[in-house]
Amino acid sequence: MSDQKLYQAIFDPRSIALIGASGDERKNTSRPQRFLRKHGYDGRIFPVNPGRKEILGETAYPDLAAVPEVIDHAFIMVATAAVPVALRQCVARNIPVVTVYSDGFAETGAAGRARQQELNDIISGSNTRLVGPNCIGLLSTQTHLALSVNAVLEKLDIRPGGLAIVSQSGSMMGGLMSRGIGRGVGFSKLISVGNEADLGVGELAGLLVDDPHTEAILLFMETIRDAPMLALTARRAYAAGKPVIVYKLGRSEVGRDLAASHTGAMAGTAQAADTFFKAHGMLRVDNLETLFELPALVKDRKPAKRHRAAVMTTTGGGAACVVDRAGTYGVDVVGPPDALIAALAQQNISINASRVTDLTLAGAKKEIYGGVLNALLASDHCELVLAVVGSSAQFQPQIAIEPILEADRRDKLLAVFLAPHAEASLKLLADAGVAGFRTPESCADAIRAWHEWRAPAQIPASDAPRIAAAEALLRGHAQPDEHQACTVFAALGVPQAQAVVMADADTAVHLPFPVAAKILSPDIAHKTEAGGVALNVGDDMALKQAARDILTRVRTQHPHARLNGILVRHMEQGLVEVIVGYKHDPQVGPLIVIGVGGVLAEIYHDFAMRLAPVTPETATEMIAEVRGLAVIRGYRGLPRGDCAALALAVAAFSQLAAFADIAEAEINPLIVKTEGVVAVDGLIVKRKGDVPC
Amino acid sequence: MSDQKLYQAIFDPRSIALIGASGDERKNTSRPQRFLRKHGYDGRIFPVNPGRKEILGETAYPDLAAVPEVIDHAFIMVATAAVPVALRQCVARNIPVVTVYSDGFAETGAAGRARQQELNDIISGSNTRLVGPNCIGLLSTQTHLALSVNAVLEKLDIRPGGLAIVSQSGSMMGGLMSRGIGRGVGFSKLISVGNEADLGVGELAGLLVDDPHTEAILLFMETIRDAPMLALTARRAYAAGKPVIVYKLGRSEVGRDLAASHTGAMAGTAQAADTFFKAHGMLRVDNLETLFELPALVKDRKPAKRHRAAVMTTTGGGAACVVDRAGTYGVDVVGPPDALIAALAQQNISINASRVTDLTLAGAKKEIYGGVLNALLASDHCELVLAVVGSSAQFQPQIAIEPILEADRRDKLLAVFLAPHAEASLKLLADAGVAGFRTPESCADAIRAWHEWRAPAQIPASDAPRIAAAEALLRGHAQPDEHQACTVFAALGVPQAQAVVMADADTAVHLPFPVAAKILSPDIAHKTEAGGVALNVGDDMALKQAARDILTRVRTQHPHARLNGILVRHMEQGLVEVIVGYKHDPQVGPLIVIGVGGVLAEIYHDFAMRLAPVTPETATEMIAEVRGLAVIRGYRGLPRGDCAALALAVAAFSQLAAFADIAEAEINPLIVKTEGVVAVDGLIVKRKGDVPC
Repeated sequence: MSDQKLYQAIFDPRSIALIGASGDERKNTSRPQRFLRKHGYDGRIFPVNPGRKEILGETAYPDLAAVPEVIDHAFIMVATAAVPVALRQCVARNIPVVTVYSDGFAETGAAGRARQQELNDIISGSNTRLVGPNCIGLLSTQTHLALSVNAVLEKLDIRPGGLAIVSQSGSMMGGLMSRGIGRGVGFSKLISVGNEADLGVGELAGLLVDDPHTEAILLFMETIRDAPMLALTARRAYAAGKPVIVYKLGRSEVGRDLAASHTGAMAGTAQAADTFFKAHGMLRVDNLETLFELPALVKDRKPAKRHRAAVMTTTGGGAACVVDRAGTYGVDVVGPPDALIAALAQQNISINASRVTDLTLAGAKKEIYGGVLNALLASDHCELVLAVVGSSAQFQPQIAIEPILEADRRDKLLAVFLAPHAEASLKLLADAGVAGFRTPESCADAIRAWHEWRAPAQIPASDAPRIAAAEALLRGHAQPDEHQACTVFAALGVPQAQAVVMADADTAVHLPFPVAAKILSPDIAHKTEAGGVALNVGDDMALKQAARDILTRVRTQHPHARLNGILVRHMEQGLVEVIVGYKHDPQVGPLIVIGVGGVLAEIYHDFAMRLAPVTPETATEMIAEVRGLAVIRGYRGLPRGDCAALALAVAAFSQLAAFADIAEAEINPLIVKTEGVVAVDGLIVKRKGDVPC
Repeated sequence: MSDQKLYQAIFDPRSIALIGASGDERKNTSRPQRFLRKHGYDGRIFPVNPGRKEILGETAYPDLAAVPEVIDHAFIMVATAAVPVALRQCVARNIPVVTVYSDGFAETGAAGRARQQELNDIISGSNTRLVGPNCIGLLSTQTHLALSVNAVLEKLDIRPGGLAIVSQSGSMMGGLMSRGIGRGVGFSKLISVGNEADLGVGELAGLLVDDPHTEAILLFMETIRDAPMLALTARRAYAAGKPVIVYKLGRSEVGRDLAASHTGAMAGTAQAADTFFKAHGMLRVDNLETLFELPALVKDRKPAKRHRAAVMTTTGGGAACVVDRAGTYGVDVVGPPDALIAALAQQNISINASRVTDLTLAGAKKEIYGGVLNALLASDHCELVLAVVGSSAQFQPQIAIEPILEADRRDKLLAVFLAPHAEASLKLLADAGVAGFRTPESCADAIRAWHEWRAPAQIPASDAPRIAAAEALLRGHAQPDEHQACTVFAALGVPQAQAVVMADADTAVHLPFPVAAKILSPDIAHKTEAGGVALNVGDDMALKQAARDILTRVRTQHPHARLNGILVRHMEQGLVEVIVGYKHDPQVGPLIVIGVGGVLAEIYHDFAMRLAPVTPETATEMIAEVRGLAVIRGYRGLPRGDCAALALAVAAFSQLAAFADIAEAEINPLIVKTEGVVAVDGLIVKRKGDVPC
């Protein structure tokens, strides 16, 4: 089915079947029919209920087969066990879209997952697409479609406008709608996606990229089920100038726990999700209110090269509430340049060079506020202007609100925080498309989101010859040992410490000493505990003896282990040990992670993460993000490490993303020297069949 | 002056002189007189203005001396330069309280600080107390006193109620007032403290502890200027069951920068301020809205021994918005015990054991919501219940809002988050004294603040004999060297590595080897660079040689340095190196800090901090807070360190708080072993005269 046809069947159906409809107003199943009519839907409605001839004034049908006309969209509200039968009838009728409100599927556990699979099997190969199950329905304001059981539709009028919401939480749809309405924003579409058995967030949001009524797409997410499709949609939306703004649960362990039990989906880490959103040009907000307040700031904009914020205010304390918090996010707050101060002085406006331009009570006059605001908006020392307004915002809009409304903000982002409770002024701002914020926290959160916003990451060209060489090395190893893993990494271009394998204690070894010797065996996980390791071996004689001792100890402790020899590696010295990890994440796919080696980095969760593969430029950004790597970036006069070589190694290693069969891989450690880097230990874990996600 | 007299003169004056009053409504200086009358003040008002006989219908006086009656309170609004003269006249008239609105004092820099000092000199030894300068005024609702230039008083009616605000930001007073009013809360007193030249936050808030109209004290702070007085007030308020809730700026570098330039006060670290607030039983909020929403939750309560939260909801997504965030703060979210599930089953209410009790749409019925809520409130498995309400909160209050209003919450804290925009229901909650929250963020912030709330810290008894012994050792050393510092610490009870001082290379040394040898000199800051250190010295012969080499090198490089000999110390091995620091903070006073040694702990800002001195119990809490000390708390099977000995050493070291002349001290490192701890290096920096603060 074409996207256009899908869009029409979902959001602009000319006929709807309500399967399991009820005439009893106390029942949820009566709501879609009532809400459709109440909100002005003028297409055909076919209630289906074997026990009734008429429901709420419309002819009812005993089953779907009895409906005399073409049906664009069916809405299923029957008991869980009856859903497959109803869905089969929809497929038989060739209904293009079926929305399933009924619950009791993947969100309930293993048996529910099997029931959900049955739904997928039913539509497989058919012309029918599925929204849900376990979804609360959807709305489209332009087509007056309120196809939902959401109770707020009983009383709430949804104002048409440019925001679309796609939500994985059905029970939050009402809250999101009513909060948006309460804040004076208008909506184009609202979609509860439920369990996403078929149509997911990515594909549904994709329809909104092409929707002329939608200007920004807001996602309320608990998990990521369709990363590739969502990535595609996000990149298309970015190109179309429609910001995709995400609020995602799962930042804490208890939050992930809830999301997992609630959605039936596997919970990923917050960092992986953030990495994914950022890589595809999406904006992530941390505060719920920011979902509604950020769109006006970033609509039709692209991320700037730099992210400097200039701040002006009539209340020093009010501005500080925003700026202090933005500062904790690393936002760069810049004072006015001398030329701007001089130009304002020409207009008899006196400001100083401090980072927040505080006009104080004395400067709370329209010509001063407007003069400074326009000067900041026209200056190239900043990319965003934050205008804070004190008490005047509530009762004297002529002082600061008017010049804000009149300002020319074509070339620059303008965020406005009103210190008092000033609903009327916020409405004036909203109506004029100016981004006004109700709390210092949502304002700072929006500025943070903008500050972190990036164009979709470039996907680096894959290094085909090296990947082919590495693949050849990996082939046939069900579970590669350390030496094989390091050989694969070397083939990709990661420098290795010199190493050889001794078949037995008498193998001649030509390596610079000191060396480390380690048993190679697919059957021994803990080599040190097994007596399989000797470090700082100083010469040939000592090495022979160490090899003999290792073999004796290992054979005693693990008489049945397969032994592949002894790996001997030159021991390297460097400035710092780095862990470089690769993982095929069940939610977002290939990821690369770097951090400082050792137990402290793990305790402090100090890692930089990107979708793999990465370019050396991106790897350089990652190196700058790892706080603990300050020790090789010149911190306190410590010697600098070769970050360029580290970036090349990380980029080379990230080409593992081309290997479909690798679940995880790690270099631990990669030693960074003043010149060069060298890997001294490695690991590859292959995927065991398909990972459920 | 007694507190009662001060309270009366500030908040209930029978006569007020307005010095610099104007009849021109466009001028700020006309406002106090207009606002006083508008808001119902019925005492005497004496406008003072040499150019006018009458102002706004009241007789005006050319100067203060001409006012014919007793004056309780004077409000000065004249130009900066004229303030001292006006204040002198107030002192001459024996006016008990003078509030100075005029600015141009310490907030403007060095010259302004001198002008402010002049004000202090003027009132010194008099019966006059000063509020301000650079303050916007104050309000008292019960006495209809609106003695302020705040523009919001032109239109806003301040609803009387139990909240008092004390603010260091004058320009935010209007915002705070109007936000409070917009949220339906009532105020008892509102005070802008300005530069706190005389009366500070601590003393003014202290008056509110005894104010029968004040139930909770809210502080909007940029700095801490009167820590001892504020500490006393906080402890009295705690005892009186009046929560003191603080919103403090200065969490980021740019925020501290602003606060410093804006208030003329020295900016301290956020961690020091937080430590101070917590030590004295105050609650700190992170979101501005929480200031108004938290009081209802904690009023008349004390911190619990444990802080477990039970959560119930009709919207899984809505509850997750709060719980996910609370989880990032380490809040313990607990599911219902089996007995509670069984008891509800008896009432035909079925819930499961998951950490959030989600009744779902199906359970959105009054008897179910109320049944579960009452069961949670009566259960002893939690100390706080978070009740989340979905769409019904907006239009169907009978479902969940009613049972919330009817619930018996005498024995437990109840926090309510409404997922939709539901102002009417929030008002019902506020009127009933139930803590309702508008955003998931402020709700989670409130739960965090409660979770971190502690009774005022016990101040440990000082160990007088040890302090006396340590003082004797310190006496006479203008700047103690490492050995002297360590000797002082040892006298306080901190175990030391064995050490002796060699007067020259031939001094006999009886220490177990290996040892370290270090030059002792008050003139050499960088001993290693000066060739003044030898490590891992293995025997007597080697030590003699090392000592000779050190002396030769040091005498060559620093021919004029005074040499106090060579410190020889047994080299110790342990599990981890800890830094223990002591500091007399200019804002909050004596502080003790512990962290892991080495550069990473510094990069990660991983320190635990308390006001000094501390008990061993408090030191034990500190050890548990340092994330990096996981390595001696059993992390990943690593050997455990002697945390008990570490706690004793930290408590002993913290007795340095008794030494008025120590600015800073440090043990770096204190080596923690499997049994015992041992200090191997130390430093004491004495105070150089008085530190300005």
